[in-house]
Amino acid sequence: MTTEEGPDPRPAQEETGKPDQPPPAPPTRRRPGPVTRRALLLGIGAAGGAGAMYAAMGALGLAPREQKRDFIAPRPGDFSLTGRAAAKVLILGAGVTGLACAYELGKAGYDCTVIEARDRVGGRCLTLRGGDRFTEIGDEQQVVRFGEGGYFNAGPARIAQWMVTMDYCRELGVPVEVFINDNAQAYVYTRGMKAPIRAAAYRADMYGYLSELLAKATNAGALNRRLTRADRQVLLDFLAEFGDLDRRTYDYGGSDRRGYATPPGVQPGKMLGPVPSVSEVLGYDLPRALTKTASQEQAAPMFQMVGGMDGLVRAFAERIGEDRILTRTKVTRIDTLPDRVDVTCEGPDGTVVHTADYCIATLPPHLIARIPGNLGAPVVSALTAAQPTPAGKIAIEYDRRWWELEDKIFGGSTETDLDITRIWYPSYGFFGERGILIGYYTIGSAKDTFTPLPHRERHRRALTQGKKIHGEKYRTGVLSSASVAWTRQPYIEGAWATFTDPGVLATLRRPAGRVYFAGDWLTNLNAWIAGSLESARTVVTDLHRRVLSQ
Amino acid sequence: MTTEEGPDPRPAQEETGKPDQPPPAPPTRRRPGPVTRRALLLGIGAAGGAGAMYAAMGALGLAPREQKRDFIAPRPGDFSLTGRAAAKVLILGAGVTGLACAYELGKAGYDCTVIEARDRVGGRCLTLRGGDRFTEIGDEQQVVRFGEGGYFNAGPARIAQWMVTMDYCRELGVPVEVFINDNAQAYVYTRGMKAPIRAAAYRADMYGYLSELLAKATNAGALNRRLTRADRQVLLDFLAEFGDLDRRTYDYGGSDRRGYATPPGVQPGKMLGPVPSVSEVLGYDLPRALTKTASQEQAAPMFQMVGGMDGLVRAFAERIGEDRILTRTKVTRIDTLPDRVDVTCEGPDGTVVHTADYCIATLPPHLIARIPGNLGAPVVSALTAAQPTPAGKIAIEYDRRWWELEDKIFGGSTETDLDITRIWYPSYGFFGERGILIGYYTIGSAKDTFTPLPHRERHRRALTQGKKIHGEKYRTGVLSSASVAWTRQPYIEGAWATFTDPGVLATLRRPAGRVYFAGDWLTNLNAWIAGSLESARTVVTDLHRRVLSQ
Repeated sequence: MTTEEGPDPRPAQEETGKPDQPPPAPPTRRRPGPVTRRALLLGIGAAGGAGAMYAAMGALGLAPREQKRDFIAPRPGDFSLTGRAAAKVLILGAGVTGLACAYELGKAGYDCTVIEARDRVGGRCLTLRGGDRFTEIGDEQQVVRFGEGGYFNAGPARIAQWMVTMDYCRELGVPVEVFINDNAQAYVYTRGMKAPIRAAAYRADMYGYLSELLAKATNAGALNRRLTRADRQVLLDFLAEFGDLDRRTYDYGGSDRRGYATPPGVQPGKMLGPVPSVSEVLGYDLPRALTKTASQEQAAPMFQMVGGMDGLVRAFAERIGEDRILTRTKVTRIDTLPDRVDVTCEGPDGTVVHTADYCIATLPPHLIARIPGNLGAPVVSALTAAQPTPAGKIAIEYDRRWWELEDKIFGGSTETDLDITRIWYPSYGFFGERGILIGYYTIGSAKDTFTPLPHRERHRRALTQGKKIHGEKYRTGVLSSASVAWTRQPYIEGAWATFTDPGVLATLRRPAGRVYFAGDWLTNLNAWIAGSLESARTVVTDLHRRVLSQ
Repeated sequence: MTTEEGPDPRPAQEETGKPDQPPPAPPTRRRPGPVTRRALLLGIGAAGGAGAMYAAMGALGLAPREQKRDFIAPRPGDFSLTGRAAAKVLILGAGVTGLACAYELGKAGYDCTVIEARDRVGGRCLTLRGGDRFTEIGDEQQVVRFGEGGYFNAGPARIAQWMVTMDYCRELGVPVEVFINDNAQAYVYTRGMKAPIRAAAYRADMYGYLSELLAKATNAGALNRRLTRADRQVLLDFLAEFGDLDRRTYDYGGSDRRGYATPPGVQPGKMLGPVPSVSEVLGYDLPRALTKTASQEQAAPMFQMVGGMDGLVRAFAERIGEDRILTRTKVTRIDTLPDRVDVTCEGPDGTVVHTADYCIATLPPHLIARIPGNLGAPVVSALTAAQPTPAGKIAIEYDRRWWELEDKIFGGSTETDLDITRIWYPSYGFFGERGILIGYYTIGSAKDTFTPLPHRERHRRALTQGKKIHGEKYRTGVLSSASVAWTRQPYIEGAWATFTDPGVLATLRRPAGRVYFAGDWLTNLNAWIAGSLESARTVVTDLHRRVLSQ
């Protein structure tokens, strides 16, 4: 297999001139003594636990490759009876994937070095705070001026409770809190509306009319062939409750669920009115406002790391050890050889060739494609097919939390058909003095008004658009802002990457010689932290199995 | 007006024998000098701000009584130009209402004393922690054995973001966090089901079939007279998205939204199946599971006070001052006199008659009705009409948070038609070692299996019922539990009170002589902390206006 051992081995290691760069460890060649498979496995199981046994089973070709999804982390004990030693691994990229690989391999004794071109770890998992500086490709530097405790999750901001991200947060002691992804009190605004409406009103009216229409059709006999009489009665009862219909006529005539013009207190509340017609409600035509939490990925509740979504990458980096992470170090060449991998870098110490037994490349695929080396034409061709997606956000800090004080909105998002797409209100710092909201979160190129603009223009446009929803206060008391356009972030150049033909991913899920690829882009959880973690676990398992079987 | 000054004034103050009980302050009778109304108001406005002006306007009969809902707190400055002095006020009951009254009046300089029969403040706003002891009427004492940091909100547990409760938490520095009232990952279980299903599956299937049925009816022409062709197309597009229907046939054939049999990772997720028929889904017949967040009172997100819902009452008590709150002191007689109120109490110091200018009775109405005195037959009759509602909860502490670890449920509730009604998973302490869930929260008498039982039987039954949803682990690792049946709580005797004829409330919203009534039961936010606060504000405003106008 050409890609298994590398098509173009470099004959000799380049002189690095770096004093603390050890020569590659010779691969250990000792084999276990002559024992039966069963005795070996039982012995390993007794001494090293299930993890060691499973790893050894894999090494012996016994473990099914796809059936078992549970991750069994490599551990030092896995080597104790096999006679092998942990290998030296170079990990390219200190984003979530790279750090997770280094963390998991490091736990088992692998000698990992993480190489990162940017000046900080985390990659797209970027949380910006007061004092941070960053530059976009072709734009001036931004200096973040948020007050103490304020932050901006410029990248991923949400975790679904079933995702492996939660497990890593638990394991590493990173506390989580609710990320409010649905708020009935937030607004919906489309350009056809005279004024924004509360999400609760959209929901009540839409559910009300859907229920009324279906109840009337049921009573007119339209469902007689689909449903039994008993089912029809249950359906009618459900619709009356679901739509808050008149229990006799099944008419929708508005509902307190829309919101109150005057909330109840000592006196009864007064329903927010007038109630729009079914035609008006259909005309809002922003289903996203009512279905955004329908998917498993976005179902409520969601979670965020307390204090910023870089909590996990910070915890990873701490466990890995800062000395193993080389920042400001750019990969300029990757060569996979029969017995090692050479990775050439430009860093603070000039040009250095790092050598290891294996390499895991966790950079965005379209960036790996540009790095010279000997990965082979099929691999480079597959990598080149990656299409980076633009996405961007702006965070705006205000001197007071007017959305809580005046609009009674605590977290969640206002959905709109404007190019800002949505406004996210913070799910932390309730009752605080200042507050930071997300003034746009745009995805994809169709409406990408903001990426080409310099920051000050994005700021201006975000305020102009937000004013359509919140009025003049949206432009009042603004303290500062910061914005990120992911296609313009150096060494990242995209919010995430997709492939028109996912078939090419099969090529990239296999190692190219001694070089493995990993990242959310290789998974079915693209653009989620969980995708990075799942990919890291898979590659770590594959690599560990290979090391144990060599 | 008979009720305004009291129908049966007692001629003389009883000897109290209590040394620190000052005689009632004689009412101040000085009047402001001869100025015009306008000049007076402008002067008050300039010197005392809007609060003083509004209070003075009320005193002069200028303020509309019902139109303005915003509360303007009494302040010391309100007295500075009117020549009056703050009065002495006895407040009966140290629940939320009583404490809010004492807090608001105290800010303006009123001399308040709060009298509470129980051994702690808070009333139904009761948070139980390890070491707490409490007794139910006719039952043994319970000793709470929860671990450090664990707590049980035996009473109110949730705040809607538009409620005044949030404003008080902000004002008093009581931090809040999200109370998860809806969780797609939690279960739904009815006795007709073979096994519990995830709420997400119920929602996806119900929305799927509703959408399919309505789309088919639309395409069959059943809505042609109700909707234009254009509206019908918008509706169909919406239904396809809302129900996750086949975009060509408008069939519902299941959806990833139901949940995954295998969640996505490197490989695609596998949809949870099989998909039940429309008849099966209608047969679940638990609309509450899908509509519980529909109302404004229960719309997501909701909030809770960090560390327990007694945070606000603790903050109130601290501001009021412990010396002004007499616990273990039972009211045995209330007499409203022309110039004062006498309240007779049995407390640690024996029988004491407290005297004040005014009294605010915040006890449950059916308990006030039993207290001898001279409130008058119409008032007592109205109070007697109160019907206490039973409600109860059990909190169960486990040695591990299996609902997070195994079920991936972080907060929210499982809804069921069993007599436990629901199971609430905690919205705090995520990733912790131990966890406390609510094993039942029953409301009303229809299914009130638990109130008559002693605690150990409630515990046993709750575990038996919960096992139907969660299996044997529900009875494994149980550390301790505590349960409250509100009709059996001394000096409370009900979760809340309702009135068959709300007309009688008009009588009780007026003072009986110098005795005012306040409580959630007088409002349209019955059983909410916000109801207590709104009632307190109204009575405080009324009383303050009266004092300023005397």
